[in-house]
Amino acid sequence: MERNIKKLVILGSTGSVGTQTLDIVRAFPDHFEVVGLCNGFNAPLLEQQIDEFKPAYFSSLGDTQTGYGGAKAAPAEEIVILPEVDIVVAATVGSAGMPTSMAALRVGKTLGLANKEVIVMAGNLLIEAAEAGGATILPIDSEPSAIWQCLEGEVSEPSRLIITASGGAFRDRTWASLDDVTPEQALKHPTWTMGPKITIDSATLMNKAFEVIESRWLFDIPFDKIDVTIHRQSIVHSMVEFSDGTLKAQLGPTSMGQPIQHALFYPERQVNDDLPKLDAVTMGTLTFEEMDQTLYPCFELALEYGRKGGTYPAALAGADEAAVLLFLGGKIKFTDIPDSVAETLAAHDSITSPSVADTIEAAQWATENTLMRHNHSTILS
Amino acid sequence: MERNIKKLVILGSTGSVGTQTLDIVRAFPDHFEVVGLCNGFNAPLLEQQIDEFKPAYFSSLGDTQTGYGGAKAAPAEEIVILPEVDIVVAATVGSAGMPTSMAALRVGKTLGLANKEVIVMAGNLLIEAAEAGGATILPIDSEPSAIWQCLEGEVSEPSRLIITASGGAFRDRTWASLDDVTPEQALKHPTWTMGPKITIDSATLMNKAFEVIESRWLFDIPFDKIDVTIHRQSIVHSMVEFSDGTLKAQLGPTSMGQPIQHALFYPERQVNDDLPKLDAVTMGTLTFEEMDQTLYPCFELALEYGRKGGTYPAALAGADEAAVLLFLGGKIKFTDIPDSVAETLAAHDSITSPSVADTIEAAQWATENTLMRHNHSTILS
Repeated sequence: MERNIKKLVILGSTGSVGTQTLDIVRAFPDHFEVVGLCNGFNAPLLEQQIDEFKPAYFSSLGDTQTGYGGAKAAPAEEIVILPEVDIVVAATVGSAGMPTSMAALRVGKTLGLANKEVIVMAGNLLIEAAEAGGATILPIDSEPSAIWQCLEGEVSEPSRLIITASGGAFRDRTWASLDDVTPEQALKHPTWTMGPKITIDSATLMNKAFEVIESRWLFDIPFDKIDVTIHRQSIVHSMVEFSDGTLKAQLGPTSMGQPIQHALFYPERQVNDDLPKLDAVTMGTLTFEEMDQTLYPCFELALEYGRKGGTYPAALAGADEAAVLLFLGGKIKFTDIPDSVAETLAAHDSITSPSVADTIEAAQWATENTLMRHNHSTILS
Repeated sequence: MERNIKKLVILGSTGSVGTQTLDIVRAFPDHFEVVGLCNGFNAPLLEQQIDEFKPAYFSSLGDTQTGYGGAKAAPAEEIVILPEVDIVVAATVGSAGMPTSMAALRVGKTLGLANKEVIVMAGNLLIEAAEAGGATILPIDSEPSAIWQCLEGEVSEPSRLIITASGGAFRDRTWASLDDVTPEQALKHPTWTMGPKITIDSATLMNKAFEVIESRWLFDIPFDKIDVTIHRQSIVHSMVEFSDGTLKAQLGPTSMGQPIQHALFYPERQVNDDLPKLDAVTMGTLTFEEMDQTLYPCFELALEYGRKGGTYPAALAGADEAAVLLFLGGKIKFTDIPDSVAETLAAHDSITSPSVADTIEAAQWATENTLMRHNHSTILS
């Protein structure tokens, strides 16, 4: 059954989605083969992954030497375009995944996209590259994955997408009361266990605005047909409304395992006893409420610039990346995040019809501008 | 666009689902043409429908004369097999829809099935007839329609169907306290407006057992993979669980308009401003609880005989039909319904591998046996 084995490259293999992707691979050794592991900084974990999954290639920003565990070091952009690669999982965070994601799409690979900033920054360019290259983008992010699954098999266009939001760590507080929250408090997500960047973005609902922008491009639907509902239990991962008033919802445990596995196995589904399960018969109470916009200034701000287009969405992603790092590093307050992002965007000189390089540059400019304004010249200072 | 007009026959056109089917036809005059209207007893309404929809044929148990409004009287079994007919909507109640439904399937028509007793009585025979005739059965009943929609586009088998139940009119009472309920009380469904037979069946949860049996055949899934959850709001019309733990749900207002329209337009969807809408963003609280079996003796009883097969399910349908009529006529108590059905089934001599005629005979036997036991020799006495 050699031909049925899907060959994978994982971008960001040592992060939260990267390690969970490898959990799925580990559960189905007859279905997947890891061709390449590309990560950021965590060299010890990367080496452990190389030992276990025996990829032919790796890329590392750490000090892992070529030949480690029999794997050859190569740039990620070269690994993803290897002819034997079937699927590239973009599990990177922030703007880092852009060049490799674009490279994979241009040569027609299937891209499992968890790195939402990439599509926020340059949604139309990603879609164009996928179309030109004959590539497929499969969402791994939980909410877009839910929408994708609800659209499956439907021949008519959806009339509305309804993205669910838990409301984040501070959903029961007023914005004014959040002045003194610590990174530790903000990192406690009420329902999901995720990486630090996305958890802070969830607390501000910046993450939800990113999902709206992501969905606008992935599903080719105007912004005004995408709504958000506060759903505190995070069991309904999103919904789609059709023109006849029918709605479909995708539900599941608060686990990234299901959306990751679905992208890897699509269109099939497989039993995986390692994944948490949800008993729908006894799942209790699910609530759906309108969002209190005053509690989430980042949300409206992000959508405003998402709609403007040009390099604004890329600058948004870069500014947010910096602001979150500044908050996590104790340099700014939680409530400074939207102000900081707004200030950077107000200073941004947007380019109409940008290239991919323009979007990367805009994101970098926004990150640097934000950090410099707060007297931090590098992210790690 | 003549070729796009779907030609319809409606069985039970003067009933609840029949009139709602004609509401959809009325809303889309360029999409549908009514070829035949077949009803039971309500001649004045039938004549009004003939005046409005100008069918070429009708069948009536009343005194409408052939030639009325230019329509020719003919037996329903002959109308449904006319070459020009595309879709037959079986909106009849009880076992009455069996011969015409079978006739339509044998010649390969698309059957929109609202008349669940037909598939309860002879599920395997209906499926066999559809396969032999090259016919398609499209569920119109709200819960099976929801399951069908959730399965759309999925290539893997579902691992579980979760049918939602409102709990009926007496969900907040104990069984023992229901001794003195009147037909008027039982006819007040908490969420749905439906015909009298199905409303009483909803109060006893006989209707839910029928949906389990119906789903077992429509979706070719074993009984032990079908569960019921009490969902008081009737917004989630049913759910499907897949092998990877993912769930899909279909949601909508408590309106038969959507499932009827979906069967008529399938696979397309169309805007219909006449239908009620549900705002998912602000839909509030949805609850899902395990069913208290002690409150619904009909449910377990019906499933027991549904599983036994043979002519038991047909006898079940016939016995229930009689028991509901006896209750509505003030002849037995609400709490007598399960005992009456159980007594009839205990006396039934089931045939293994029955024919369609055997199932009709078993249902008639059960109806008559039940009525006679209560000293009522006809349904209308």
